[in-house]
Amino acid sequence: MQNPLQTRELAAMQWSELDGAPCPIARALAVIGERWTLLVLRECFSGARRFEDFQRGLGISRTVVAARLGSLVDAGILERRVYQDRPERHEYVLTPMGRDLSDTMLVLAAWGNRHLTGDQGPLVEHTHTTCGHAFRPVVTCSECGDTVSARTIRMRRTATGTASDAAPAA
Amino acid sequence: MQNPLQTRELAAMQWSELDGAPCPIARALAVIGERWTLLVLRECFSGARRFEDFQRGLGISRTVVAARLGSLVDAGILERRVYQDRPERHEYVLTPMGRDLSDTMLVLAAWGNRHLTGDQGPLVEHTHTTCGHAFRPVVTCSECGDTVSARTIRMRRTATGTASDAAPAA
Repeated sequence: MQNPLQTRELAAMQWSELDGAPCPIARALAVIGERWTLLVLRECFSGARRFEDFQRGLGISRTVVAARLGSLVDAGILERRVYQDRPERHEYVLTPMGRDLSDTMLVLAAWGNRHLTGDQGPLVEHTHTTCGHAFRPVVTCSECGDTVSARTIRMRRTATGTASDAAPAA
Repeated sequence: MQNPLQTRELAAMQWSELDGAPCPIARALAVIGERWTLLVLRECFSGARRFEDFQRGLGISRTVVAARLGSLVDAGILERRVYQDRPERHEYVLTPMGRDLSDTMLVLAAWGNRHLTGDQGPLVEHTHTTCGHAFRPVVTCSECGDTVSARTIRMRRTATGTASDAAPAA
């Protein structure tokens, strides 16, 4: 098989077991792949911190908001901080691990802007405050600086990925 | 409210209505936000084309594989092609819109590699075939070429985004 990620382990995988999969996308989905989770994170990047901000911004049930915030705290993506003592109230702040998702959010938004708005053009515009221009994200290579694309990427499992593979694919 | 995406429209949103939301991330999730969909796409980027490839690579029920492939075809992300006449058999090939998701997949994989493998290091390694080096994706600005981060991005809704907003937030 050509797929370096295929394993007997993964073949028997349930959604709830993705956090142990030998694939970083599967592991990522284990923590941000539930419905509404990325929209909760969108609210974080838009400045939401308090439960009511999320509730208002998303308009979904308080139960779902609470569940998603709780999972994101458990995963280390948000930090829960006390901002008022009596009564005790909390706010939710992106950790460095959470802020690192800004790349994913930005690139996904750019894809939606490009492909899912018909002839209407972008729904949102991103400005790079450093240079002051409206921009599109361009994904480049850390080594040579050139743009990368599906056609110029090759992927292989590392020793770590292989080691966590109990039964290598034939 | 500071959140430019908050709308009364969105506040009443059901998951099934995200495809009309005035937010490109919400619209993206309407087509790739279901469980397993991004893993189906991972298989595509790893070379899977035939139903059995997906079935073997993911090890989930045929019903779910068929549903996800069907949705991706409907969304214009995959194209269904006949590769054999008698009996008729199909394969699933990424469209240009689908290949454009490679950025998202790559950046998400990099995040998982960085944050979800404990002390073990990356599970997969990406090589940039143009320069031949193992690399990390770096998200840069289309205008100035510098790296962008959560702290140097400002987002605003465009006229399109505003126009599709029936009731602007106060």
